[in-house]
Amino acid sequence: MAVYTEVPDEDLAAFLKAYDIGEAVAFKGIAEGVENSNYLLVTTQARFILTLYEKRVERSDLPFFLGLLEHLSAKGLNCPQPVKARDGAVLGELCGRPAALVTFLDGVSVRRPTAAHCAELGRALAELHEAGRGFGLTRPNALSVAGWRALERSARGRGDAVAGGLDALIAQELDALEPAFAALDLPTGVIHADLFPNNVFFLGDRLSGLIDFYFACDDVFAYDVAICLNAWCFEPNGEFNVTKGGALLAAYHAARPLSEAEIAALPILARGAALRFMLTRLVDWLDTPPGALVKKLDPLEYLKKLKFHQRARGVADYGWRP
Amino acid sequence: MAVYTEVPDEDLAAFLKAYDIGEAVAFKGIAEGVENSNYLLVTTQARFILTLYEKRVERSDLPFFLGLLEHLSAKGLNCPQPVKARDGAVLGELCGRPAALVTFLDGVSVRRPTAAHCAELGRALAELHEAGRGFGLTRPNALSVAGWRALERSARGRGDAVAGGLDALIAQELDALEPAFAALDLPTGVIHADLFPNNVFFLGDRLSGLIDFYFACDDVFAYDVAICLNAWCFEPNGEFNVTKGGALLAAYHAARPLSEAEIAALPILARGAALRFMLTRLVDWLDTPPGALVKKLDPLEYLKKLKFHQRARGVADYGWRP
Repeated sequence: MAVYTEVPDEDLAAFLKAYDIGEAVAFKGIAEGVENSNYLLVTTQARFILTLYEKRVERSDLPFFLGLLEHLSAKGLNCPQPVKARDGAVLGELCGRPAALVTFLDGVSVRRPTAAHCAELGRALAELHEAGRGFGLTRPNALSVAGWRALERSARGRGDAVAGGLDALIAQELDALEPAFAALDLPTGVIHADLFPNNVFFLGDRLSGLIDFYFACDDVFAYDVAICLNAWCFEPNGEFNVTKGGALLAAYHAARPLSEAEIAALPILARGAALRFMLTRLVDWLDTPPGALVKKLDPLEYLKKLKFHQRARGVADYGWRP
Repeated sequence: MAVYTEVPDEDLAAFLKAYDIGEAVAFKGIAEGVENSNYLLVTTQARFILTLYEKRVERSDLPFFLGLLEHLSAKGLNCPQPVKARDGAVLGELCGRPAALVTFLDGVSVRRPTAAHCAELGRALAELHEAGRGFGLTRPNALSVAGWRALERSARGRGDAVAGGLDALIAQELDALEPAFAALDLPTGVIHADLFPNNVFFLGDRLSGLIDFYFACDDVFAYDVAICLNAWCFEPNGEFNVTKGGALLAAYHAARPLSEAEIAALPILARGAALRFMLTRLVDWLDTPPGALVKKLDPLEYLKKLKFHQRARGVADYGWRP
């Protein structure tokens, strides 16, 4: 939630000369995204988001991210659409950083999604999965099972300081999930992999767009569903809301029918997703110096979710009876 | 440059119910202002800035700031105009903080103002001084001479660690400026007191608006001019640009003629202004913990400016021959 690179007006003006989008009439750094610098740009023609990619984003991944947004936009999905410069390029350079302009999406993210919001989200996620078909580039999921092991090693011996027994729980969980995930044989394609409520815009109860595709990758579709169950359907008190879970799953299924194998795998996928977010939050928690710019998220929120998924027997525990 | 208070969508919606400005279609925290949380709000009707006043702003000062913006807007000055709720109030409460909506001003701030920008600024500053006449509320300048002495005490004994001899220089300067300022008898009224380039918007070479009136107060008009000479007319290498100074002063004078006494006082006023910004920057520099959210500004930039003003003999040294 920061602007890491300040863009002077003269650099902005020089950058915009490569585009046919009019003159800047307003330009403000916005607190959105934790990895990059984002600006709202209003020109004489329209509103845009200008992103400067900071060093945590791999430059070699940018063609995947920007190409994906172009592909999804062309398929009719409401997501930021990269704006082409006059020479056709979607990636430029500004203040020494790779930079891209995308269209501005109207909408407001919701802090406490209702079941109606969860249904909208489920449908949009299925549409995203369908729209991603045929996209020519691929990107492995750096935060899939192999990545969890690396995170576990990084946190090893330090987890117990955050919660008693956490080191052992993580080790046991990984030992259980590695073979379980290896045994899965489920449909794959482009997934968002980070579709939390802050990355989804609504106008009233209607979903108006999806943003922040910087974790998008190729992976199991149903794992993306499992991430959303974690991110959208738990209450602040830690309880899973079966009404929201059922709404999300039924709406997804109506737009992209889940196979029996996908449905059966949901508890183990949700457990993996909970472990993934617990691990990244834990490592951030342990490695971020006090007073740093980044807002630290509580890893223990995901420990509670993980324990729910460990107990889940099947999709009925998530509120859905297909 | 931060958003200190996150405003959930549901709180925003409840807040907006008191206004007749339509529904929110976009809402983004923006990196503007160092004291408060600022959001860009786009509704079905128009664009606005929503400000939540954080604890460094005195709640008792808010009627002055908001009333001043209303007064100046009514006089035709391009500045944020407070938006009235249905009950006529311009100050509400949101997330436990005083909050206000103001109109959004188009324009972009310039990092390296040209002489043309300085002329526009000079004219706008004079128009601001004229427009402030008749405003019913008053607010003393907390950062005038008496405030400098308090800052000097806070920094005493620590300045030499920033630059050799700085403690003695500050003490001597205050001893010289206190009687010099006390002897001034110049026209006073509402001044902006912080009209740096980041608080002034342009569309091309045309000034489109002034923002951030949270240091506004009653003080000597020509002191505001002196602040602008410091903030607008020095080059990055530390040299005063007489072309820019002359443009600023001539344009101001054309819109609000400076008296002989005001003109004669400019070097001492500019010296005081340089000391004021050096002192606040020095105290921030000394008191801000490393890694904090706030961007630290170099106090020594103003030490160089102060030394220029010490040598100035008259307004000709600022590039103007009235």
